[in-house]
Amino acid sequence: MDFSFCINYLLTVAQHEIFMNFAAGLAPYGITPGQYGVLNCLWTYGPCTPKEIAKELRLENSTISGVLDRMQKRGVIDRELDPNDRRSIQVVLTEEGKAMKDDVLRVIDDLNDVALSPFTQQERDTLIYCLRKIGNVESHGSPR
Amino acid sequence: MDFSFCINYLLTVAQHEIFMNFAAGLAPYGITPGQYGVLNCLWTYGPCTPKEIAKELRLENSTISGVLDRMQKRGVIDRELDPNDRRSIQVVLTEEGKAMKDDVLRVIDDLNDVALSPFTQQERDTLIYCLRKIGNVESHGSPR
Repeated sequence: MDFSFCINYLLTVAQHEIFMNFAAGLAPYGITPGQYGVLNCLWTYGPCTPKEIAKELRLENSTISGVLDRMQKRGVIDRELDPNDRRSIQVVLTEEGKAMKDDVLRVIDDLNDVALSPFTQQERDTLIYCLRKIGNVESHGSPR
Repeated sequence: MDFSFCINYLLTVAQHEIFMNFAAGLAPYGITPGQYGVLNCLWTYGPCTPKEIAKELRLENSTISGVLDRMQKRGVIDRELDPNDRRSIQVVLTEEGKAMKDDVLRVIDDLNDVALSPFTQQERDTLIYCLRKIGNVESHGSPR
């Protein structure tokens, strides 16, 4: 089969390309696209358990622990005992993790705009609709 | 930003989902989606250098060597000295690698059909057009 018609090949190549652009755009902040995902959970929902973050980001529980280790070392998150359940650990933002929110979200918006800039509004809508459907991602209204 | 609007998140989640389906569909043949990519190069172009395969599949030269090692151990490819340039290595199909071609291509066609089955023809065309454009993938006419 011609690779240019294989959905697995096309998704892999497109994902790699966009991931590299996001990684480059976030590098000045010392975070990776995956770490941005964790920060965005905490910015949106407040303190979360590692399990809640893994679920939101579709990561294995074994993967999230290494991501959190690196972010804690980097100084953008901390792990605390849940005051309501002292057997449970919560991930919280440090001051630095809070302070970078507006700048990082602006970068993410710009990266999305650049990634979708070759396409008409109708093409963007269809692309996003199809990717959500393939990935079983629920849509939550407006983008920002 | 809401993840359901972030192109990096959507591509990552969709790619993971489709990759898992392709991996499950190819498992009975003892090959991974990446190994299918190598076989498809050899079925299409005949003997290739590791560098040519890496370029077609957008893999690092360091990655392709491990993939080829596992495929050689599995018995579907072999490495030979290029008869025209004895400093150069060519990857060739074994009899088993040749024999599985029709069955594997049928599975790949089915996996693509299933992946795209929720979408209209116009949605499929737009999805594929957008992914090719993002990934800088040239289109080569008809799908099969």
